[in-house]
Amino acid sequence: MEISVLQKERYAYKPKLPESLLHSVSEIAVELGQPTESVANQDELRKIFKHSYGKPIAAFVKGKNEAASRELKVGVILSGGQAPGGHNVIAGLFDGLKKGNANSQLYGLKGGPKGLIENDTIPLKDAIIDEYRNTGGFDIIGSGRDKIETDEQFAASLETAKKLGLNAVVVIGGDDSNTNAALLAEYFLDKGSDIQVIGCPKTIDGDLKNEYIETSFGFDTACKTYSELIGNLCRDTNSAKKYWHFVKLMGRSASHIALECALQTQPNICFVSEEVEAKHLSVEQIVGQICDSVVKRAERGHDFGVVLIPEGLVEFIPEMKKLISELNDAIAANEAQFAAISGFADQLAWLKSHIDAASYNILQSLPAEIAQQFLMDRDPHGNVQVSRIDTEKLLEGMVAKKLAELKKKNAYKGKYSSLTHFFGYEGRCAFPTNFDSDYCYSLGFGAFALISLGLTGYLSSVRNLSEPANKWKAGGVPLTMMMNIEHRHGKEKPVIRKALVDIEGKPFKAFAAAREKWAVETCFLYPGAIQYFGPPSVCDDTTKTLKLEQGK
Amino acid sequence: MEISVLQKERYAYKPKLPESLLHSVSEIAVELGQPTESVANQDELRKIFKHSYGKPIAAFVKGKNEAASRELKVGVILSGGQAPGGHNVIAGLFDGLKKGNANSQLYGLKGGPKGLIENDTIPLKDAIIDEYRNTGGFDIIGSGRDKIETDEQFAASLETAKKLGLNAVVVIGGDDSNTNAALLAEYFLDKGSDIQVIGCPKTIDGDLKNEYIETSFGFDTACKTYSELIGNLCRDTNSAKKYWHFVKLMGRSASHIALECALQTQPNICFVSEEVEAKHLSVEQIVGQICDSVVKRAERGHDFGVVLIPEGLVEFIPEMKKLISELNDAIAANEAQFAAISGFADQLAWLKSHIDAASYNILQSLPAEIAQQFLMDRDPHGNVQVSRIDTEKLLEGMVAKKLAELKKKNAYKGKYSSLTHFFGYEGRCAFPTNFDSDYCYSLGFGAFALISLGLTGYLSSVRNLSEPANKWKAGGVPLTMMMNIEHRHGKEKPVIRKALVDIEGKPFKAFAAAREKWAVETCFLYPGAIQYFGPPSVCDDTTKTLKLEQGK
Repeated sequence: MEISVLQKERYAYKPKLPESLLHSVSEIAVELGQPTESVANQDELRKIFKHSYGKPIAAFVKGKNEAASRELKVGVILSGGQAPGGHNVIAGLFDGLKKGNANSQLYGLKGGPKGLIENDTIPLKDAIIDEYRNTGGFDIIGSGRDKIETDEQFAASLETAKKLGLNAVVVIGGDDSNTNAALLAEYFLDKGSDIQVIGCPKTIDGDLKNEYIETSFGFDTACKTYSELIGNLCRDTNSAKKYWHFVKLMGRSASHIALECALQTQPNICFVSEEVEAKHLSVEQIVGQICDSVVKRAERGHDFGVVLIPEGLVEFIPEMKKLISELNDAIAANEAQFAAISGFADQLAWLKSHIDAASYNILQSLPAEIAQQFLMDRDPHGNVQVSRIDTEKLLEGMVAKKLAELKKKNAYKGKYSSLTHFFGYEGRCAFPTNFDSDYCYSLGFGAFALISLGLTGYLSSVRNLSEPANKWKAGGVPLTMMMNIEHRHGKEKPVIRKALVDIEGKPFKAFAAAREKWAVETCFLYPGAIQYFGPPSVCDDTTKTLKLEQGK
Repeated sequence: MEISVLQKERYAYKPKLPESLLHSVSEIAVELGQPTESVANQDELRKIFKHSYGKPIAAFVKGKNEAASRELKVGVILSGGQAPGGHNVIAGLFDGLKKGNANSQLYGLKGGPKGLIENDTIPLKDAIIDEYRNTGGFDIIGSGRDKIETDEQFAASLETAKKLGLNAVVVIGGDDSNTNAALLAEYFLDKGSDIQVIGCPKTIDGDLKNEYIETSFGFDTACKTYSELIGNLCRDTNSAKKYWHFVKLMGRSASHIALECALQTQPNICFVSEEVEAKHLSVEQIVGQICDSVVKRAERGHDFGVVLIPEGLVEFIPEMKKLISELNDAIAANEAQFAAISGFADQLAWLKSHIDAASYNILQSLPAEIAQQFLMDRDPHGNVQVSRIDTEKLLEGMVAKKLAELKKKNAYKGKYSSLTHFFGYEGRCAFPTNFDSDYCYSLGFGAFALISLGLTGYLSSVRNLSEPANKWKAGGVPLTMMMNIEHRHGKEKPVIRKALVDIEGKPFKAFAAAREKWAVETCFLYPGAIQYFGPPSVCDDTTKTLKLEQGK
């Protein structure tokens, strides 16, 4: 296999572990706390998770684990979108298993949860694991977005696990995948099986987070990759002095990525969807905020800047949410009729009498090519495909229009030229930072320890992450503790609650305190490329979000 | 000033110099070769460059330079698009000047050549220079795309230089800017002035290259930045296994960037404009080549891949070039008439009788939104704005259409989903690699040495670049040696000949030998982020292009 020089050097990296996992595996014991409750809907969840609700928090401590040398068979799943460090979770799990008993076996369940449903596996041996240590991607066994949902799928999963003789299944995934892990753990218990299920908190979006899960893995690497690029754009525009860059960043539900990138690069403008929703901001206000900055900077002779936009922004603007919902309803109720209308102008005319006047006015105020995106490309349920809406182009177009109006009124005298970007896929498979390499390896090793100690329905947890790795605290958090009931696809479902950006939290407040200055002055920071070697100040730095949250 | 942790650490980097520039400046002498000739049009150029044509190649050697301690005043210009390392050229020039005489002064001419025309300057002192060492961007003095063209501008430039008491002007730029430097050198001589002009070879595009200029600075860093991102996309799609990524890369005239990135990442497909032109490939053939790879990979169950597209591709496809030229002519000849037609369908109908049938068929075969880009957004001369054409979307759309046809014929059975990207601005202002840091510092220091030795009309040159820096060979190449006469904007003009990709050269041949395999198999390489610290195998690696060209 031909590999890059960096990949070769990264193989030599030895991930750091928390002290509690550095002991011989027979000396890793567990300390259990009090029974826990879910974050909400305790009664309903107690009923759904009859066998697994309310387990105690688990912390690894030095002690005796008589079962540590048991021969184990474990299956591992990579679920959902890629996040840097997934391979190290598997490597940590593998190394733990082999330290316990050289005959223990790890199976990769291929292509996501469907590998378990369909019994599509690959035995993971030393040679394979070594090829993937400290690398990005999920290519070792592939990933997938399937869920184990139907009775048949749950039964098939149990059957595969039994056929393989598995003692445990480890699910590496985000909130949805770990909700699935919780249901699987409960199902196995309900069927009288002792096959354990352990989750690991993955997602570049950073929205699987709570008191015990300080960050999901991949967030660190992805944000640093995006910040490298944003910083480069900042420097470019500060050199050429003639472009406003509109940068959309991955993150449909939460704006953690946009916020972290803003803290790392100090752009002129950054929107945080959670604030937009909380303050009921309108499109006009958002456009106005950008124009304000453009005008003020132009007065200083600075006809350039950078704007960060979270991918999911439109869904958090109340009037846009309303527009989307009305479009969905109107078109669904008149499907054939709407389909027969050809041409955007006629569609618009038809909609005038089928949606609310306010919504119609907004639709009409959008740049034509963007408004068309609301009407074309509907998903199989007939709904607007929000992920296809080029929010960065929407704002770019509306800002240009507004500036032209201001120019006519002599309220703006600058030169305006703009460019758009979308950074997402570029960051999901970068080589994990030293932080993510260490964190993931610890999560995987911790997952082994949880299995070895007989626990099920837990998420592997490593805390105290803004300290050096040896001071990290490892253990497990019961999955049900993070759950509540939410309305999804027309049904009440138990799900892990997403952690949105807390606009009362320290990272947002740090941003809010600085942004007025950034909007007018040029305060850009240039973080540069992720460094894996060299000064600890550069290589071992964590995200600003984590540091601020932990009072650093 | 708030700076990133990487920027702080990069300040400490000491760029390496070739041995010939490590001596005390009073011991840097020059060895001059035979008179030189331009690459073509020798007679015409001899007439245009009466005073500066045909100078000898200059090589620095250990010797005596009596004038080294002369107090000098030098102006420096950053010209054209940003390239990583520009700040180090200035730092090298500054350090050289100060080693010669602590009272020597460096002036930054602000915002490109217009800084010289308009006498807009900033004195560059230690404190400023130190803030910019080993950083990306051109923000120290800004850049600009103006040229010194009219008699008035030449006269104003001389006046500024005299006012400032300059001994020399250093122009950091690409082929056009250095053509301008050659004309300025000649102008000064013609006016009896002894103000020297020295150029430095800049451009991420890599097309300022010849026997004496082995690479332009910034190419190394930019290609590594793009390759980081392409490698990440390769790994992402090899994990998710469901997307074809179409990646457009900066580089209007030459495809050096696309070729280098292909060598670094081994994508499934990469087009090289120079080959497309040489082989008279049609759009259909190009689309067919991609579809071939998609179909063959689908047969192996691999419904994913990566395609690299040089920015200037359309202009190199003979039939597209013809289409563009006919559109320009037809519309220019009937400007008012065409402007009165509203709507794409009517424009198309009008064009049917105004352009060649073959061209019309091609226009009609393009995805509608792309075809519209050929007709909208015309430049001030009424021409198609080729840089506005989304070539990556053009190919994405045509591939989708062709695959749908193949599917109907049962000749393709895969699932097809695609995404597009454009990488350009992200790479122009990255922190320069160690290579570019060293190379640029050497170019700048060399520029000082050329000035100190009394030369004018030279490009600072550092050769033997695939060897360690101490073995590099520094000197100067006469600017006229690289020139010929070309037809530009309706006139015959002396210009530095652009170095396009040589399809008989070693880098292209290495690519051509491997590409059939890459098209079908998954041979991706993941170069990862640029590393500034750590193992020399990673940090001091040069581009594959340079290594192959030098037989490494």
